[in-house]
Amino acid sequence: MKKAIYPGTFDPITNGHLDVIKRALGIFDELIIAVAKSDKKNPYYDLQTRLSLVKKATKGLNVKVLDFSCLLVDFAKKQEVYTIIRGLRAVSDFEYELQMHYANASLNKKIETIYLMPSLENAFISSSIVRSIKAHNGDISNLIPKEILKDIM
Amino acid sequence: MKKAIYPGTFDPITNGHLDVIKRALGIFDELIIAVAKSDKKNPYYDLQTRLSLVKKATKGLNVKVLDFSCLLVDFAKKQEVYTIIRGLRAVSDFEYELQMHYANASLNKKIETIYLMPSLENAFISSSIVRSIKAHNGDISNLIPKEILKDIM
Amino acid sequence: MKKAIYPGTFDPITNGHLDVIKRALGIFDELIIAVAKSDKKNPYYDLQTRLSLVKKATKGLNVKVLDFSCLLVDFAKKQEVYTIIRGLRAVSDFEYELQMHYANASLNKKIETIYLMPSLENAFISSSIVRSIKAHNGDISNLIPKEILKDIM
Amino acid sequence: MKKAIYPGTFDPITNGHLDVIKRALGIFDELIIAVAKSDKKNPYYDLQTRLSLVKKATKGLNVKVLDFSCLLVDFAKKQEVYTIIRGLRAVSDFEYELQMHYANASLNKKIETIYLMPSLENAFISSSIVRSIKAHNGDISNLIPKEILKDIM
Amino acid sequence: MKKAIYPGTFDPITNGHLDVIKRALGIFDELIIAVAKSDKKNPYYDLQTRLSLVKKATKGLNVKVLDFSCLLVDFAKKQEVYTIIRGLRAVSDFEYELQMHYANASLNKKIETIYLMPSLENAFISSSIVRSIKAHNGDISNLIPKEILKDIM
Amino acid sequence: MKKAIYPGTFDPITNGHLDVIKRALGIFDELIIAVAKSDKKNPYYDLQTRLSLVKKATKGLNVKVLDFSCLLVDFAKKQEVYTIIRGLRAVSDFEYELQMHYANASLNKKIETIYLMPSLENAFISSSIVRSIKAHNGDISNLIPKEILKDIM
Repeated sequence: MKKAIYPGTFDPITNGHLDVIKRALGIFDELIIAVAKSDKKNPYYDLQTRLSLVKKATKGLNVKVLDFSCLLVDFAKKQEVYTIIRGLRAVSDFEYELQMHYANASLNKKIETIYLMPSLENAFISSSIVRSIKAHNGDISNLIPKEILKDIM
Repeated sequence: MKKAIYPGTFDPITNGHLDVIKRALGIFDELIIAVAKSDKKNPYYDLQTRLSLVKKATKGLNVKVLDFSCLLVDFAKKQEVYTIIRGLRAVSDFEYELQMHYANASLNKKIETIYLMPSLENAFISSSIVRSIKAHNGDISNLIPKEILKDIM
Repeated sequence: MKKAIYPGTFDPITNGHLDVIKRALGIFDELIIAVAKSDKKNPYYDLQTRLSLVKKATKGLNVKVLDFSCLLVDFAKKQEVYTIIRGLRAVSDFEYELQMHYANASLNKKIETIYLMPSLENAFISSSIVRSIKAHNGDISNLIPKEILKDIM
Repeated sequence: MKKAIYPGTFDPITNGHLDVIKRALGIFDELIIAVAKSDKKNPYYDLQTRLSLVKKATKGLNVKVLDFSCLLVDFAKKQEVYTIIRGLRAVSDFEYELQMHYANASLNKKIETIYLMPSLENAFISSSIVRSIKAHNGDISNLIPKEILKDIM
Repeated sequence: MKKAIYPGTFDPITNGHLDVIKRALGIFDELIIAVAKSDKKNPYYDLQTRLSLVKKATKGLNVKVLDFSCLLVDFAKKQEVYTIIRGLRAVSDFEYELQMHYANASLNKKIETIYLMPSLENAFISSSIVRSIKAHNGDISNLIPKEILKDIM
Repeated sequence: MKKAIYPGTFDPITNGHLDVIKRALGIFDELIIAVAKSDKKNPYYDLQTRLSLVKKATKGLNVKVLDFSCLLVDFAKKQEVYTIIRGLRAVSDFEYELQMHYANASLNKKIETIYLMPSLENAFISSSIVRSIKAHNGDISNLIPKEILKDIM
């Protein structure tokens, strides 16, 4: 059985994330969605809310939703799953991911990261855009999974 | 009469902004300069100061200087002006603008954004560089409109 | 009356081009579509075919379709229209356009270039992708204006 | 059994390609290495040589080496394998791949592309650098699989 | 005697910095390592610690370690050394450096900046990655000079 | 005495090249301008013309103008000069240079490459833009050294 880890802050989970999750499940049999505590990023939603939104949005999919606060490579080792999934939207994503990729590889040679690009209709969605539009009372119903719309609004 | 909106934080207005404004006025008959409240960015100058500096620097030009704190697309709707002007200086600007462009288009299909590139001599100027040089008592007289030099120094 | 020039090789005209044209016509009253002879690029379709495809695809729009083989700045001067429209799709486009912008400005200070970004659904379309898919007998019906489908197939 | 297609021109196969192949085989059970005829690119090595070099360099690995001259999406359909592997080295790769990704998705929704980044020590290797160093009699023994060194030199 | 200034926050000094320093010393006879106070960046290590770590890590090399809190161009003038060394790792570095380069040149025409690219094995190392791995108790022994390992751990 | 090599095709030499040369001479005592034969690039001007234009344009400067057709690392070894100068104008330059840098370093560890960014007023100039403007009878007098204007026109 092929497993992979999809790590992120999910602050909150968006249609962009869900798109990556569904497509990753076309390749892997099970996905561990790893919600980072990310204290340093000072997330808008607390960890429990973020976990609960991810669980709601991925109900029925073959995923396991876990949180982690250690290094991703250590989390991967504990789960004995060494394939990481990451979404790539933009050149700036790409450079950051390249740096992380080499940093992780220097910590654990077994780690393999694979990248998925978003569907065209989700290419511009990010958690920070969702938060910003919501903060100004804009319509985010096309940007986040409908299952969590009530929780976010 | 062709109108357009030029939104920004203008913290403070620079020669780069003024360059974009003057060139946009070669294409449009009137420009609404929309100064964003931008609480989240925690601007260095308060909104009243930023508005007053923009007004001083654009005196005599066919512009209207307004502030806004809602979504840009909602401001545009209220003004009934659907053309947005943005300056593009660098690849990182470009990616951010591309994301904003698609986010705004998803909120209101009528919104059109057009981009102007800076004159060569203003290509490196940004509000943050102005603030940083000023904070170290460097010479910013070539970077901001001369009309506001006394107010900034 | 506000006019602008939209220059390109149009080898062949795509839905991406048509998108830029229609949106530019929301801002300008008339558009001169300037089809470059581009001998050095060794175009796949000859100049007459490219002109005729552009005319067919833009029938009913307020455009004038002309060809040119001189410098763009000289063409602009002859037409007495100094606003150039360009589409921006990618970082590599951006850098090339930035260089052209400064080169043109060095040749004629009156030239102003403005950039439009594509609609999301046209963001990946280019003439070379159309030619490549067509060369392998792939389906290009979503990539080029339906008015010219028979001429291209 | 999880299969994927790794397409390319392989002109010639390098240690960078072999790196991607070996890492993809950590995720997938079998890999179809699809050597593109690529007439338009005017390859330095002919198709038979490129195929034979790939076969030699991947001996013992669980791969099938095939050539193709149709659209990649049509090749994928014929093989009934809808996962494509691509290597990503640089920002310019990234943009090209993003465009191809959307073009392929517009042709066949079932196609999924995943990207692997190179190991640090292979990050700069490309077929064109290999050909260029070889053309000037430089040492390419660290750049291509040792199994094909004699064939290339 | 050829001198140059290598400025930075060094929060903390990494093997990437040390790599640039050693290679710059192959070109220049003496290097002034200028540790910026950088109050606005809110560094993790205080200025005295950063200075002391740089001194320890560069012991035996022909460098002078100084701190500065003024504009870099003013520091350069005071030292009467007008050549600045900067490392370039990524596209995002490049754009920031390009902007700084033009800003500095606008302040003092005598300033010359030269850029060095990292060795492949240090290409992904940055102070922020070091701090992040250390914060999660990861192994940073390959990322920072061994002389300061005990001080950082 | 500090020496460096400034390699290129110089097809033809531009004010951008001359800018880099003059600034490199502020750092190095002597510069070897290495004009690449570059058969594969199919240069517009032949090697003898390119050499003669470089010599004319750099008359009075402390440079030695040589041609080479071997690998740059082998030329460097023969000259016993291991510092290479390169100009950096754009992100695309940067990525190409990064790849070359690592390829050269893999061939000869002694090679050091340093990068200079252009003055703002030369930032957009390239040999290909000069050739293109000249081909359309545009004015290139601000783009190339005045000493060679008559030879090029």
